Amino acid sequence: MLSVFGSVALDTTRTPFNTEERILGGAATYASLSASYFVETSLIGIVGTDFPLEYRSILEAKLDLQGLSTKQGNTFHYDSSFDYALSHRTTNKTELNVAADFEPVLPPGYPTPKYLYLANNDPIQNVQLFSKFLSPMITMCDTMEYWIRDRRDQVIRMMSKFDGVVINDEEARLLCGSANLIKCARTILSFGTKFVIIKKGEHGSILVQDDVMFPTPGYPLEEVVDPTGAGDSFAGGFLGHIAAKNSIDSYTMRQAVIYGNVMGSFAVEDFGVRRLIKLTREEIDLRYKKYLDLVRL
Amino acid sequence: MLSVFGSVALDTTRTPFNTEERILGGAATYASLSASYFVETSLIGIVGTDFPLEYRSILEAKLDLQGLSTKQGNTFHYDSSFDYALSHRTTNKTELNVAADFEPVLPPGYPTPKYLYLANNDPIQNVQLFSKFLSPMITMCDTMEYWIRDRRDQVIRMMSKFDGVVINDEEARLLCGSANLIKCARTILSFGTKFVIIKKGEHGSILVQDDVMFPTPGYPLEEVVDPTGAGDSFAGGFLGHIAAKNSIDSYTMRQAVIYGNVMGSFAVEDFGVRRLIKLTREEIDLRYKKYLDLVRL
Repeated sequence: MLSVFGSVALDTTRTPFNTEERILGGAATYASLSASYFVETSLIGIVGTDFPLEYRSILEAKLDLQGLSTKQGNTFHYDSSFDYALSHRTTNKTELNVAADFEPVLPPGYPTPKYLYLANNDPIQNVQLFSKFLSPMITMCDTMEYWIRDRRDQVIRMMSKFDGVVINDEEARLLCGSANLIKCARTILSFGTKFVIIKKGEHGSILVQDDVMFPTPGYPLEEVVDPTGAGDSFAGGFLGHIAAKNSIDSYTMRQAVIYGNVMGSFAVEDFGVRRLIKLTREEIDLRYKKYLDLVRL
Repeated sequence: MLSVFGSVALDTTRTPFNTEERILGGAATYASLSASYFVETSLIGIVGTDFPLEYRSILEAKLDLQGLSTKQGNTFHYDSSFDYALSHRTTNKTELNVAADFEPVLPPGYPTPKYLYLANNDPIQNVQLFSKFLSPMITMCDTMEYWIRDRRDQVIRMMSKFDGVVINDEEARLLCGSANLIKCARTILSFGTKFVIIKKGEHGSILVQDDVMFPTPGYPLEEVVDPTGAGDSFAGGFLGHIAAKNSIDSYTMRQAVIYGNVMGSFAVEDFGVRRLIKLTREEIDLRYKKYLDLVRL
């Protein structure tokens, strides 16, 4: 089993072309739904009593929700706007609500997952949760600007404890104080993690390990509707494939990066998780093959 | 023979780490030097009487200079500064000097090149020069922001007359009025050109033809010294390989894109053309192989 811990949110997402209010979102939502096409996946997080039944049904259809707590109050709400190029997001409002003082508590007998992905949470929470899980075989974490600015030391300590780090380019530059992404990846490796993936949005990603570099372009899309969750869907597809193959050899990692790019490309084709929940494994594998066809010499 | 027409310049290039004054530069300089590793290459352009003998010797060692005019006055001088990330350039000064009212005139008996690359010139000049060359087998052009803003219709007319267009991402967005680069490529194809390459700096490039898309990541570099000329070196390597193979089948085009990425990656490793003029064909082929090794599944 793969467990994903992170935010489950109601997103208000504004693009120059459309606005969608309080749609299902959150880093852990995207990552877990994405991973669910590859392996049995459980979601650990918290929602409020306002969390729509319809959204719970969507999650229930694909995920183990034993670790999803519900608390009196409102669900984490994130309101943001994209620019015309859909490449820059401005935060309008962040209402943490029930996520504010959340301490992840798992029900007794909760199975130890073999694979664990910790999305954008407080690094201290992440390390706490990690220590509860005994020793999952592979652990991976992300972070975000807020924690890098506010808790840089804890972010670095967290990264030192995980097998892999996925992080976007801007966050990597901010964390490492270098404009060069390869230098950033080397710096993050020096914290103690075994591999780093720097996500570059439409430009794809680069995987860096000791003696491996695997740069990949993004899957070329003519229509992008809502870039929200692309990186989280990447992470879910990446770790999902690793979990399904139960291997971290270099070939599997490379395949996993491509599945990550593929899942990210699906996520942005509609608002919120709409495209992500309608996929079939056949569509995913078809796009994976198409991707390989496009990039081969 | 491959002919390159465009600016030969003295560049003053300022990065946060170093400033180099009046070094050899210009789009056609980079493109022709890059192409010279693949095929016999000639440079068409103009310099002033201040153009240092040392720079002329550098060009003479690798290029046919019959089409390089010298005119009383100063050489085109371009002064610019890069930001800390070496990703944004600010123009401090553009002194056109002898390039201001240049009308390309070729000596009698100048051989018709089989391949022609027209770099960043006035689109009207480019079309004029093109008509003088009878019919080169393959023609390719670039443009720049200045012409897109000032002479958009002529830029489009120019593109309609050439086999291929290379253009960077920001210019493509400006020209086509869309943030989506695949849409931009389709728009440029609709002008009448047969293929488009959108260059994305460190993020690589994408080649788009009717039924072909070939996205590639950039060659990952840990040290970038001066990004000047990366795109022009890309174009030179791309068309140089095509000329050497004397083919535009899809496989050769893909190889050419990778050679383009490779030549761009060399260009940025030192100020100006310093790295570009010190290369050997062995180094180029070695990096080409290394690139293929990095990106393969």
